[in-house]
Amino acid sequence: MDKKISDKVINRLTLYHCILTDFIDKNIEYISSKQIAELLHIDDSQVRKDINLLNNSGKSRIGYIVKELKISIEKTLGFKKTKKALIIGAGNLGTAIANYGNFTDYGLQILSIFDNDKNKIGRTINGMEIQDIYELPTSALKEEIDIAILTVPAKYAQSTADFLVNAHIKYIWNFTPTVLSVPNNVQVWNENLMGNFLQFTYNI
Amino acid sequence: MDKKISDKVINRLTLYHCILTDFIDKNIEYISSKQIAELLHIDDSQVRKDINLLNNSGKSRIGYIVKELKISIEKTLGFKKTKKALIIGAGNLGTAIANYGNFTDYGLQILSIFDNDKNKIGRTINGMEIQDIYELPTSALKEEIDIAILTVPAKYAQSTADFLVNAHIKYIWNFTPTVLSVPNNVQVWNENLMGNFLQFTYNI
Repeated sequence: MDKKISDKVINRLTLYHCILTDFIDKNIEYISSKQIAELLHIDDSQVRKDINLLNNSGKSRIGYIVKELKISIEKTLGFKKTKKALIIGAGNLGTAIANYGNFTDYGLQILSIFDNDKNKIGRTINGMEIQDIYELPTSALKEEIDIAILTVPAKYAQSTADFLVNAHIKYIWNFTPTVLSVPNNVQVWNENLMGNFLQFTYNI
Repeated sequence: MDKKISDKVINRLTLYHCILTDFIDKNIEYISSKQIAELLHIDDSQVRKDINLLNNSGKSRIGYIVKELKISIEKTLGFKKTKKALIIGAGNLGTAIANYGNFTDYGLQILSIFDNDKNKIGRTINGMEIQDIYELPTSALKEEIDIAILTVPAKYAQSTADFLVNAHIKYIWNFTPTVLSVPNNVQVWNENLMGNFLQFTYNI
């Protein structure tokens, strides 16, 4: 697949992937575009169009073959290409992400979690020991990690981002409600919860 | 404003709003589209185009007036129209959301948090007492709440959604990695973390 897939399509494909995983758990072999469309309250034709972007061979007269469609999505979206990340901030949000469960299915491997709170360092979350943030630069270098998941309180977001940039982190998944100032060679993905909420509720 | 604003624009406007809030904290009076564009690593002309969608009168020769631009965004996106919500699940994610801080600035008022764990019920998070989930239907009706923020473990997501539908909840902000099956009169916004991650890392 060399075709560039748009953000909206990637988003829908991961939702289809959730549905397919659920169907496999329930031992269901076939799925129709209509079933997917109904679960997501979207149009049938949209689902077919999205699936046509995949190199999906698993289509039969009675629907898509669940297992093969799942594999097609994984191949197209690069789930098998493992991306290593670390979490900064062992508060509730960092802990929730560390425990989120199905990230590894999507190729995201969280290797470690860091904090600067002496009371937290040494404790364990989902099998990972919370490490001192000052160990981060060495650890990131050794493990070749270039993705950081930022979950510190908003007031420490920029100073922590500066620290991450100095530690040669190249991608910051920003869960803080802050716009970070970083050099052009660093990419930030703002997990903009309020933006999402406003999109959702704009018409209420 | 009757013009329909696209999801991408809403998302960017909330990020501009974050930047403006930060500028106000720093007592900076004016901001240029270039300054916003540089912080977000996007194009200058995009910022101007977005701002042109607002009824923004606060433009001077030396830039936009920070306070007025902030108010224009709030008016356009309806921040002042308070939306009442409740959280289901007092785990790490529910707790993180209850403590997130700046939601009220955006018109989201979280009134209560529910769980079914007897060990959690009665404890307090950010001034809210964790209530028994079986109190939810009465409470939602009394407080006229129709938005539920779902943060329960994935395996309980569908049964909890069924419960919410029966309690006449009309909007579910779904933080579980599950596609929920709900009637057509109920809207679900999937906070699809893995979809976002894959968009972010697609080109890594």
